[in-house]
Amino acid sequence: MNRFVWVMALLVFQSATAQTDDSGFLRKIADNVLSSNAAYENLRALCKTVGPRLAGSSGMVKAEAWGQKALRDAGADKVWLQECAVPNWVRGNKDEAWYSSKDGKTIKKTPMDILALGNSMGTDPKGIFLPAILINDFNELEARKAELAGKIVVFNNIFDPKNLSTFKSYGESGAYRVRGASMAAKYGAKAVLVRSITASTDNNPHTGSLVYDTAYPKIPAAAMGLKDADALIARLKAGEEVYVFYRSEARFLPDAVGHNVIGELTGSEFPDQYITVGGHLDSWDPAEGAHDDGAGCVHSIEVLRALKAIGYKPRYTLRVVLFANEENGMRGGNKYAEEAKAKGEKHVFALESDAGGFTPRSFGFTASLDQLRNMRAWVSLFEPYGVYQFNAGGGGADIGPLNRLLGTPMAGLNPDNSRYFDLHHARGDVFENVNKRELDFGALNMAMLIYMVDKYGL
Amino acid sequence: MNRFVWVMALLVFQSATAQTDDSGFLRKIADNVLSSNAAYENLRALCKTVGPRLAGSSGMVKAEAWGQKALRDAGADKVWLQECAVPNWVRGNKDEAWYSSKDGKTIKKTPMDILALGNSMGTDPKGIFLPAILINDFNELEARKAELAGKIVVFNNIFDPKNLSTFKSYGESGAYRVRGASMAAKYGAKAVLVRSITASTDNNPHTGSLVYDTAYPKIPAAAMGLKDADALIARLKAGEEVYVFYRSEARFLPDAVGHNVIGELTGSEFPDQYITVGGHLDSWDPAEGAHDDGAGCVHSIEVLRALKAIGYKPRYTLRVVLFANEENGMRGGNKYAEEAKAKGEKHVFALESDAGGFTPRSFGFTASLDQLRNMRAWVSLFEPYGVYQFNAGGGGADIGPLNRLLGTPMAGLNPDNSRYFDLHHARGDVFENVNKRELDFGALNMAMLIYMVDKYGL
Repeated sequence: MNRFVWVMALLVFQSATAQTDDSGFLRKIADNVLSSNAAYENLRALCKTVGPRLAGSSGMVKAEAWGQKALRDAGADKVWLQECAVPNWVRGNKDEAWYSSKDGKTIKKTPMDILALGNSMGTDPKGIFLPAILINDFNELEARKAELAGKIVVFNNIFDPKNLSTFKSYGESGAYRVRGASMAAKYGAKAVLVRSITASTDNNPHTGSLVYDTAYPKIPAAAMGLKDADALIARLKAGEEVYVFYRSEARFLPDAVGHNVIGELTGSEFPDQYITVGGHLDSWDPAEGAHDDGAGCVHSIEVLRALKAIGYKPRYTLRVVLFANEENGMRGGNKYAEEAKAKGEKHVFALESDAGGFTPRSFGFTASLDQLRNMRAWVSLFEPYGVYQFNAGGGGADIGPLNRLLGTPMAGLNPDNSRYFDLHHARGDVFENVNKRELDFGALNMAMLIYMVDKYGL
Repeated sequence: MNRFVWVMALLVFQSATAQTDDSGFLRKIADNVLSSNAAYENLRALCKTVGPRLAGSSGMVKAEAWGQKALRDAGADKVWLQECAVPNWVRGNKDEAWYSSKDGKTIKKTPMDILALGNSMGTDPKGIFLPAILINDFNELEARKAELAGKIVVFNNIFDPKNLSTFKSYGESGAYRVRGASMAAKYGAKAVLVRSITASTDNNPHTGSLVYDTAYPKIPAAAMGLKDADALIARLKAGEEVYVFYRSEARFLPDAVGHNVIGELTGSEFPDQYITVGGHLDSWDPAEGAHDDGAGCVHSIEVLRALKAIGYKPRYTLRVVLFANEENGMRGGNKYAEEAKAKGEKHVFALESDAGGFTPRSFGFTASLDQLRNMRAWVSLFEPYGVYQFNAGGGGADIGPLNRLLGTPMAGLNPDNSRYFDLHHARGDVFENVNKRELDFGALNMAMLIYMVDKYGL
C-alpha cells in the first residue's frame, strides 16, 4: 500500500467518524424540535394575539414586544431592540372597486374584491370612474401607449402554472405589480389594476409593494382577486365598453420608529464574531402573516431555543434577528448591516427563512465556491430530514445587505413552494394554514445548518 | 484513442441523447398536467357530488358511476366494471361516548368526540357504562391482565412525533387500533378506546380498520379525538375512578356487490400486456376521502388523460384501475389479481398512489435489483419535478396481490407525509385540504414514470 492510499484511507476514516458524530448530534436537534410545541405555539401567539403588523402600525409595536418575550423565553443571553426609522404606509378604510358600463345599464354594477398595492397612493376621496383598457403585457403597453390617457389600465398578468418554481412565476407576473403603475402613468393612465400574483383557486386579492418611478405621476394601483379579474378581463376581451370605479384611502404618514428585535447566545470561543439567523417581523395588513414571515421568525427563535435546550454552546455568537419592515422598505435589514459595518463587526454567516413554513426542500447559498463545496459535503446528513440539495444562489432580503456591505456568506431556507403564493400577502395567510410538522422540519434543518457552520466554520 | 474509449464515448453520447429526448417529452407531460384543471376538478366532483363512499354504501355506487364517466372523459378506449363482493360494514347512528365518575358527581359527564373503528361490532343498543383502565402498551396489558375483566381498556398509544416518517408512527401506534380489541378481549375487557392514530392539533377522531382475532369475543372499539383522549388519560393517570359510557350501532350487513372501475388505453405493440396504475375508490364514512384516496384515483385518471392528450400511444395496454374496498377488506385488489392470474394475463408493471395528494418526494419500488438499477438511471430526469429518490421497497395495498400472485414489479408514489395523518380517516379529509399544484405534481410524476416504463420496459 503506497503512501497516497494510506493518506486517502485516513481521510476517509476521519470523514466517516465526523459524519457519524454529527449525525448523532443532528438527531438530538431533530428530536428536541419535533418533541416541542415551542415554534408552533410561538407562531400561534404572534398570529392570534398580534396579527397584522405592517411597519408603523400598532401591530408592529405589539409584535416587537412579542419578539422580545419569545427570545427571552427561548433562552437568549441578551435581548435588545435596534432602532430604525420605518415608512408608515396606511390603507385607510376598505378599498372599494366595481365595474359596469358607463351608463350602469348594459353592464350592471359588479363589485370586485381588491386590495390597494402597498406603497400605492389612494384615489380622490370620492373615487374615480373611468374607462378600462386591457393590456396583456409591457410590449402591448408600448404598442398602445396612445390609447392610455385618462384610463384605468387592467393588466392581464398571468401567474404561469407551468413554471417548475412558483418563484419564477412570481417574478414574471410580479413585474406588473411592482412597475406597472409607473409604466402606465408614463402614458397618462390614471390608475392600474393587476391580477393578484398567485395561481390560487380562490378570489382573495394579494397585495404587495409597488415601486414608483418618480419621473411620472404616482397613480393608484390595486390587485384584483383572480375570479373577479377573469370576469372583468373576459368582458374587455369581448370588446365591451367597461368603466371601473376605484376608491382607496391609501397614503403615507410620516416615518415611524421601528426596531429590529435581536436575541443572542454569546459565543464561547469567538464572542465578537457573529452568525445571524433571522426572518422579518412585519407583515401585510390583510392577514396574520403566518407564513410570511411569522414562520421565519419562529424558525429562527427555535434555532436558538433548541440549541440551548440540548446544551450546545456555540463557538460564535449566535444572533437571532427579527427584522423590521421587509415588506415595504427593507429598513431593518439595511440598518442591521450598516451598523455592523460601522462597528467593524465580523460576521461569519447569515441564514434567513422567508419563504414560508412549508416542508423544507433545500438551502440556497450565496458564498464562495470553496465555502459552497465545503458545505455540500454535509448534504447527506440532511437528507433524512428532507433537505436534498445545497444550491448555489440564495439568501434573503433582510440579510442581503450584510452580504453586500460585509461580504458575509449567506443562505436561505427553501421550503416546498407549491402553496406559498396561494396565501402570500392575502387574507389566507393565517395560522390555520401552517402545519406544525412542516414548520418544525424547517426549524430543525436550520438549527442543523447553524450547528454545522458553528462547529466547522466555512 | 483506443477502441474502448470510442465505445464508451458512443454509449455516453447515446445515453445523453436519450436523456435529452426524454427530458423534452417529460416536460410536455408536465406542461399538459400543470395547464389543466382536470385532476383538481375531477377530485372536486368526487368529493362534493359523491362524498363518503365506504364499500357497500350508496356512496360506493355513486362513486363507481363517477369513475366510469371520469375515465371516459379522460379518453379511455374502453371502460368497464369488474364485479366483486364487498363487505358491508355500517356505522349506524352517531357514535356516542362520555366519561364521568360512577356517581356522575365527582366527575361530571364529559362528552368525547369518537368514532367506532371500521369493522368493529357495536355495543348493546342502550350503550355500556363501565370502569375505564389505562393501559400504556401491550407489555402493560400482559402485566395487568388480571385487572381487565369487565372494563373498558383505554390505550395510551402515542403517535411518536420524533419518527422521521409519519408512516413509522402510524405503524407503531396503529397496532393498538388494529389488534388492541382482541388483545384486551382475551382478558375479559368489554370494549377498548384508542387514541386516534395521528399527531394532529385538532380533536377530530380518526377511524380505520381493526382486525378481530376470532379466538376471542368481538368487543366494540373506538378512536378518541386527541384532546379528549388527553383529558381522559390525565384523570386515569392521576388515579381517579373514571367510568366510560359508549354506545355504537356498528354492525355488518350481508356482503354487497361492488366493482373495480377500469379504463384502458390499448397498447400499440403489446395490447395483451398490461401496465396498471391505480388508487382506491372507497373511503371512510366521516369525510370526503379527498387525500385517501380520491387523490390516488384522480392521479391515475390524469396519467391516462395527459398521455392521451399529448398524443402518446402506449406500447403496452395502460390500465387505470379504481379499486374497490381497500379500506376494510381489500376485495378489489384481490379480485383484480386473481382474475389476471386466472386469465393468464401478462402484467409488466403496476403503480399505485395511496398516500395522499401532497407534494411528491420519491417513488418506492418492489422489483428485482436489475429492474431497480435500470429505473434508477432515470432519477435525474425526475429531480426538476421534485422526485429525488427511487427507493427499494414500496407499492400499494391494491396492487400488492398482483405482485404476490404474478410477480409483477410494482411501485408507489411517496408524497411528503407531514400532513397525511392529520387528515387520514377523519373529517378533515376534504377537498379544501388538497392543494391543486401539489396534486398536479403527483400526477405528472406518475405519468412520467409510466411513460418511461412503457418506452423502455423493465
